[in-house]
This record gives sequence, structure tokens and C-alpha cells, in this order.
Amino acid sequence: MSAFQREILVRFGHCDAAGWVFYPRYFEMVSDFVEDWFEDGLEASAPGLFHHKQILTPSVHFTVDFLKPTRYGDRLTFNLWTVTIGRTSCELQIEASHGGELRMRVKQVLVFISALTGRATVIPPELVSRMHRFSAQAPHPQPKRGKARAKSPRPKKQP
Amino acid sequence: MSAFQREILVRFGHCDAAGWVFYPRYFEMVSDFVEDWFEDGLEASAPGLFHHKQILTPSVHFTVDFLKPTRYGDRLTFNLWTVTIGRTSCELQIEASHGGELRMRVKQVLVFISALTGRATVIPPELVSRMHRFSAQAPHPQPKRGKARAKSPRPKKQP
Amino acid sequence: MSAFQREILVRFGHCDAAGWVFYPRYFEMVSDFVEDWFEDGLEASAPGLFHHKQILTPSVHFTVDFLKPTRYGDRLTFNLWTVTIGRTSCELQIEASHGGELRMRVKQVLVFISALTGRATVIPPELVSRMHRFSAQAPHPQPKRGKARAKSPRPKKQP
Amino acid sequence: MSAFQREILVRFGHCDAAGWVFYPRYFEMVSDFVEDWFEDGLEASAPGLFHHKQILTPSVHFTVDFLKPTRYGDRLTFNLWTVTIGRTSCELQIEASHGGELRMRVKQVLVFISALTGRATVIPPELVSRMHRFSAQAPHPQPKRGKARAKSPRPKKQP
Repeated sequence: MSAFQREILVRFGHCDAAGWVFYPRYFEMVSDFVEDWFEDGLEASAPGLFHHKQILTPSVHFTVDFLKPTRYGDRLTFNLWTVTIGRTSCELQIEASHGGELRMRVKQVLVFISALTGRATVIPPELVSRMHRFSAQAPHPQPKRGKARAKSPRPKKQP
Repeated sequence: MSAFQREILVRFGHCDAAGWVFYPRYFEMVSDFVEDWFEDGLEASAPGLFHHKQILTPSVHFTVDFLKPTRYGDRLTFNLWTVTIGRTSCELQIEASHGGELRMRVKQVLVFISALTGRATVIPPELVSRMHRFSAQAPHPQPKRGKARAKSPRPKKQP
Repeated sequence: MSAFQREILVRFGHCDAAGWVFYPRYFEMVSDFVEDWFEDGLEASAPGLFHHKQILTPSVHFTVDFLKPTRYGDRLTFNLWTVTIGRTSCELQIEASHGGELRMRVKQVLVFISALTGRATVIPPELVSRMHRFSAQAPHPQPKRGKARAKSPRPKKQP
Repeated sequence: MSAFQREILVRFGHCDAAGWVFYPRYFEMVSDFVEDWFEDGLEASAPGLFHHKQILTPSVHFTVDFLKPTRYGDRLTFNLWTVTIGRTSCELQIEASHGGELRMRVKQVLVFISALTGRATVIPPELVSRMHRFSAQAPHPQPKRGKARAKSPRPKKQP
């Protein structure tokens, strides 16, 4: 099915002394983008999960390729797909492009945990079903150097 | 005349270990907000000024009051007025509120400089006239502890 | 008496697309520097105050002048003096210089609050006495544009 | 041979609303740590390479595992080894631990480029020989979930 998509403008403060996006700022964009996905894609506000259900979703893994540099003022298109949806964790594929050119490709694994115990907790069922809407099962244009790409036609299960 | 206004959502990464906005992140919000003002309020993209006209607008002064804490998930309303518009610099008044409650009040002075020489340069005339649209001349509701507030009915001149 | 002093190296990530320190990063440096002052100057670790005594010290005011730009690789000398020490708050004077040239001058007001109630709490007495060691009572070289400077020979009282 | 090692203190601003290190801040620590390695391990200041030789070292790849959360005030021990040293790029293994417990494991690939052309440039020979001092050839304790770990007894070549 379709990806979750947002545009992110590269700000002055995202760039380093060389005039290109400084990589920790890319991870800030990813964090904001995943929050937007929760809010608008999963209809479950991340602050709400935290404040009302004491659920946190820390990242436990990243595989990231920065394919081309991005400069101040570029408008990046971010796309997100779910690759595997497990009982307490999920794997996301995120890509950022500019003018059709892939700039960054990310594999991210999130775990749902209880803020009270610090232990993994099951993903609320209504979120699981909404996550499937964004699954990477439908083929979409193969990026260059696509080795991190999920090949399975359906999202895999994961613990 | 009217203020320039934008809403900024408080992100997970804006907050500190106490769960409130960490003050350097407030300054990141101010930087993004002033960029939006250039883009949408002054019709002069800040990246464009930098890349095409070699104009930078560093901040040389801040007076800031943090009146109430702000937490993760709050949607802050940012307002901007011009207080003084000089030949090479301008003073802005920025306020961030939540639910009508003032959270932060900022006086910021920007200087226009040439990226090539590092020296002050005159504000492009078309920007000056647009800056006046946002002048703080019309009275607007007096915030609490308003001592940093411009009292003059018209924007002052400044070098 | 003498200032609390630390050197801070300007990192790649502190700088913006123009190659100079981006102002929100200056505030990050100030935050780290004040933490170092608690740890080494006041002999009271800020994480310890937070984790064991539930005391937080949010900033409620800043007056900041950026006098000269600072570039990647510069080693800034930060100095801190206490200006006023109140019952629940204190005012600090911070200056950052490079090669004897003043780059940034900061007036910062911290309030001690209880993380549990969010209310102001008295500064622990042992901290008050150590804060006085760094008081700005002894005259030190007057910076340019020194209007934000405390003129009183002794630290003032403040609520 | 031995790893390059530094201790990094987890600051208030590194932590998120949950009180744990926010992952983009981990990447800021990695950036600073690699700068320290250039300065102290490779005897080639990163600002010097940038300002005097117009050499930049952007990161093009990361594989990162966050194994355990880290909280405000923890002192992390960062270790760095070179895994492969190519003509224009190198792969680093970085680990951050606290009290002997592995918190983060990073594989990072840096490319040396000319800031003038944006093209890859050969690593200066004196840096290559110093990089070998930190090669991961000597076995060191196997971390948990060690699949990203280089197994080869000698650093591999890489283009």
C-alpha cells in the first residue's frame, strides 16, 4: 500500500560548517517524521501514548545510508513503509529524496515499552492494523544500492 | 498591524530529562520561526538570500523570559512583530503562548551582513517595506511582566 | 573573587551553513558549562540534585549579546560569576572569549524548583555559600557595551 | 592494537522527556568523539583539515544498535577501532559502555572528500598509517548481538 509522506524543509540549523546537512540533524528529522506518522498515519499521538498510556517507542536499531549531500533550503520528501510488524516491535523503511534523487535510506527498529517498567509491551492492536496500511508489500521503485530493502511481498513477523 | 503567526508543535526531542522544553531547543524554534517569517512574511527566502545574494542575518542580541514551562506535545503559537527597523538591523518581538498563556517572550536583534565581507549591509528596500507590515505599532494585549515590551506607537529607527 | 572557568572547543556540529557558531548551540554550551559549574564549582552534581533531591534549576531569563562571530575549531574560554544570589534564584554573568576577544556575554537567571511540585524551593545552604566564592564583587575588566553588567561591588539579594 | 578511548558525560540536554539519551544526541556524541580521534589519535585536527586542506569527512553509512538505555549523568566510555581502511574511505567500529555494560554499538563509514569539488579524495598517507594503530585486528571482548562485528584478523581494504 502507499507510503506515509511528509515534506521537511532543510533549515539553517540543520547544516554544518560545510553547508550540508549534519547527520545528527537527519536523525532529528527522522524522529519528528516518525512522530508525524504516529499522529497522522496511526491516529495515535506519540505525546498521548506517553502521557496517558505510559508507552514509549525507543529505537533499538538503525541502518542508514547517506547517498548524496543535501543543502540548506532543500525540501526533502520523506517516505515511510512498515517492513515487519511484530508483537512488541516494528521495522520501518524510511527514504528521503529531493527532486526524485534519493538522499538518505533508513532501516529503523522501534520497540514499544512501558515507561513504568522499562519492559517491552505489546503494540496496541488498533495500531497494528493501521501499521499494515503502510506495509512495504506493494513494490515501489527500487532505490540504488538497495541491499537494506525488504524483499518480502508481505510484512514479516518479528518478536 | 498584525503579527506574523505560526504554530510549533513541541517534539519529543525538544524536551529534557525533566519533560519540559530544554531552552536551547526554544532558540531552535525561534530560528525556524524567523526563517518562516522571511519566507512567508517578507517573501524573501532566507536560503535564497544566502545562496544568491550572500546575505546572512546573524542575531546579535537576545532578551528572553521563560514565563511558564512547556511540555511534550503542547502546540505553541508563535507571534512576531517588528519593533525597530534600522538601515542594517532590526529588532523583533516574539512571543510563544499555549492556550492563551504566555510561555516565552523574546526580544531579538538581527543584523544583515554580507557573507563575503562579514560586514553589515543595508536591508534590501523591498524587505524594509514588508517588515513594516508587522510593526508593533498597533497595541496588542499587554503580556504579564511586560517590561521588555516596545512602548512606542511607531517602530523606532536603529542604525 | 575568581571566576569559574572552562574551555569549550567549537565542534563541527556547533556551526551553521555560514561556518559560524549557530546561536542555539551557544545555549547548549552554556547549559553544559553551568552543569560543570555545579559539579566542579559548587561540588553538587546537577544529575545528583535531579535524581536524588528532585531539584531542577530551569532558566527563567537570558540577556545575551553576541559580539563577534566564532568559527569551527576555535577554543572558547568560558567564565562565570554570580551576580545576585537570592533565596530561590540566582543571577549569573557568563562570558565566552577567544584569544582575549569577547565573543558572547550572557546574563542568566536560574530558579531552583522542586521537580515534584514545580514550585520554587530554597537553594540548599551549602550551595549558597559556595556560590559566593564566584561572586562578581571584585572588579574585572569591563567588556565593551557593558550595560548588562552588574555594577554593585557585592552580590545583590534577589527573591 | 588498542582502541582510541574517551569518556563522555551524559548531559541534561542529551536526554529526552523519558529521561534517557535521545538518539540524535548519541550521533552528536559520535561526531565529537570522531573529531577527538582525528585530533588526538590521528594527530590531524579536523578543523585544520577543513580550513587548511579543504578536506571533509562526511559519513555515508551507519549501522547502529542501542542495546540498553542511558540516563542523565551517566559517564559513557567510548571506544573506537578501524575495521577497514581504504584509499578514500574507512570503516570504524565504535562502542559506548557504562560500567562495563555495552550501551551502543556503531559501524560508521567515513569518506574523505574535497570541499572544493565534492569528490572523494585519497586519505593523506600519514593518516593512513596512524589509522592502522587503531585497527580491530587484535581480538577484544565479543559484545552481545555481535553480527555487525568485523571478524577478520586484519583490517580489510576498501575502495
